[in-house]
Amino acid sequence: MPAHPHFRQDFPQLDPPVRTLMGPGPSDIHPRVLQAMAAPTIGHLDPAFLRCMDEIQHLLQQVFQTKNKLTFPVSGTGSAGMECCMVNVIEPGDRVVIAQNGVFGGRMADIAERLGAEVVKIQVPFGQKFEIDAVRTAMAGKPTKLVGVVHAETSTGVLQALPEIAAAAHEVGALLLADCVTSLGGMPVKLDEWGVDLAYSGTQKCLSCPPGLAPVSFSERAVQALKARKTKVVSWYLDVTMLLNYWGGERVYHHTAPINMLYGLREALLIVLEEGLEAVFARHQRHGDMLVAGVEAMGLAMLVPEAYRLPQLNTVVIPDGVDDAAVRRALLQDYNIEIGGGLGDLKGKVWRVGLMGHASRRENVVSFLAALESILLQQGADIQPGAALAAVAKIGA
Amino acid sequence: MPAHPHFRQDFPQLDPPVRTLMGPGPSDIHPRVLQAMAAPTIGHLDPAFLRCMDEIQHLLQQVFQTKNKLTFPVSGTGSAGMECCMVNVIEPGDRVVIAQNGVFGGRMADIAERLGAEVVKIQVPFGQKFEIDAVRTAMAGKPTKLVGVVHAETSTGVLQALPEIAAAAHEVGALLLADCVTSLGGMPVKLDEWGVDLAYSGTQKCLSCPPGLAPVSFSERAVQALKARKTKVVSWYLDVTMLLNYWGGERVYHHTAPINMLYGLREALLIVLEEGLEAVFARHQRHGDMLVAGVEAMGLAMLVPEAYRLPQLNTVVIPDGVDDAAVRRALLQDYNIEIGGGLGDLKGKVWRVGLMGHASRRENVVSFLAALESILLQQGADIQPGAALAAVAKIGA
Repeated sequence: MPAHPHFRQDFPQLDPPVRTLMGPGPSDIHPRVLQAMAAPTIGHLDPAFLRCMDEIQHLLQQVFQTKNKLTFPVSGTGSAGMECCMVNVIEPGDRVVIAQNGVFGGRMADIAERLGAEVVKIQVPFGQKFEIDAVRTAMAGKPTKLVGVVHAETSTGVLQALPEIAAAAHEVGALLLADCVTSLGGMPVKLDEWGVDLAYSGTQKCLSCPPGLAPVSFSERAVQALKARKTKVVSWYLDVTMLLNYWGGERVYHHTAPINMLYGLREALLIVLEEGLEAVFARHQRHGDMLVAGVEAMGLAMLVPEAYRLPQLNTVVIPDGVDDAAVRRALLQDYNIEIGGGLGDLKGKVWRVGLMGHASRRENVVSFLAALESILLQQGADIQPGAALAAVAKIGA
Repeated sequence: MPAHPHFRQDFPQLDPPVRTLMGPGPSDIHPRVLQAMAAPTIGHLDPAFLRCMDEIQHLLQQVFQTKNKLTFPVSGTGSAGMECCMVNVIEPGDRVVIAQNGVFGGRMADIAERLGAEVVKIQVPFGQKFEIDAVRTAMAGKPTKLVGVVHAETSTGVLQALPEIAAAAHEVGALLLADCVTSLGGMPVKLDEWGVDLAYSGTQKCLSCPPGLAPVSFSERAVQALKARKTKVVSWYLDVTMLLNYWGGERVYHHTAPINMLYGLREALLIVLEEGLEAVFARHQRHGDMLVAGVEAMGLAMLVPEAYRLPQLNTVVIPDGVDDAAVRRALLQDYNIEIGGGLGDLKGKVWRVGLMGHASRRENVVSFLAALESILLQQGADIQPGAALAAVAKIGA
């Protein structure tokens, strides 16, 4: 008999609705991940947990396609990963070039400014990619410490190729930082082959794991930059020189690791590698293509040209006269489907439809198209009834 | 059939041992918390999740015994909570007084130095508390922005009373920052009554929840200090002015909240409040007393005098000639009981026995004493066989 039984009345048992998560993340969680997270908590220095940490690092290296020793999950969400990468290599006065074609590039610039860097921004409108010449121009003349780029812009659906930017950065002695939050586990991320020096991601996108951890990886060049620092890293929590002693060989206590989240990440990485990276990427591409075929057949337009469109994060232009919020509300309330609205410059102009990780399934594409069609018809929008599913039916499973 | 079946061989299903967690944290997790964490993940802007956030803030205010609006969980572990409190109010050049009588006071001083503060340390040996006169002396003469104190030192087992320090700090216009990582949910924490301006905690101690979140609370005075800043908060991730827009009324997207961890925290707070704060505190005291009675009857000594000893984190002096590591290893391997070793100055000198949250149970006290006695007898230590359990038996359940 609890001392305060009214708490059970005021706060009934948690019973969240079962949603299909097709927004910009979190995406659908694989059931095996939730199951793993419910395993008994053990101490962060327990030999059994140290083995689990070794496994996670090994699996993360494979998903990041890197041999970087300094590859581990930061105890925070994706943005903590961004801050971790930046705070460890940027010192006051450093010149930093940030390519900003969406919200997350803007966030990078914000963090660099807080760290006292001289920030040079390359800005193109949301929904476009930027050209290598712009990067070369921005780096020219003065020594540049770091170039920051978003590989897969979650706010716009734009893919930015990394290899030639890495080469250009290295030519002038700069490090390449890449935001791989929405790309990791959904499309190729080849840190070593491409020459990416600092990369971060999140667990809640293509890894099908709840939010809460930020996988990061530092190349040998990044580690050298870290060792050459003249000033102490301003963040204690994210100081990689100290985290290294915990995630490195010595396992020296730094902070208490989020044990059960790490159980979940281990399982999520196994799920990706069991399917195989190439198969995972092909599945994301196939279902992205299906979604686009359906959306375009319906008579709607995609924001991003095919050449640099992300298959896992699709920005659909909202037709004139359609009530953005009403459509998303109906999808959520009547169909339990979550999609995202536009962010920043794209607010009210696009929907963001995620097909990430476990959510990248044919049944999700079809359910979403059917629901969207039904809602748009109710709103009197000028679309082609039945065309979307007919277009999808033409594409093999 | 997975594409890479060898992953299942190399990485078998996660099967962590079932430990009794009586170290300095994580402590035993309540089964209801793990159950709640396995609930379906929903979006961080889903109306159902926003309700869950409201509930968590309301419940946290009750456990912190505060009306502070700015009371919410930071998306990181306890140390992220420490850094969050400090980075938001400390600006370069600020004078900061840190009372350091253990590892966590030392960490506070480290963070303050990284933020460019002029740090004045009050140092007393590990295992002692410090006197109010030392605080007054350290603050005297020059304007002091903040005084940092650890309420319950996890590294030593020392309780530091807060009310008179708060009063002294306020007399000179300083803010009081309190580390409540090991106290929250295990002993009274009365932010409003005591006048604590900034407090942080962790989920993995007396709240019986896995590590991964850091509840924090900012008083109106702290909010004023935040608003009066001349410089931008150096951390984007921990910038409370931005977090306020998410955890405050507007729910503006900042970063993706760790949804399932927050499910767990909600349940953990309900468990504490259902039992009732006073009943929870009495239970922690009772089992702490039992443990001390048993340990002392056995012939061992406690590090901390009774007057300022924590009932939830007990530092037992390791007898001469006893092999610290061997005892802890035997407890873990042969009895599945985790306790902690000494940290910093106390390394090799004490054991840290936690009785926090769900771990604060009579059966844990008795199992631990029985196991310890057995191991010490095997090591040939000079203890009184049978005395510990006899002493515990005298104390009513």
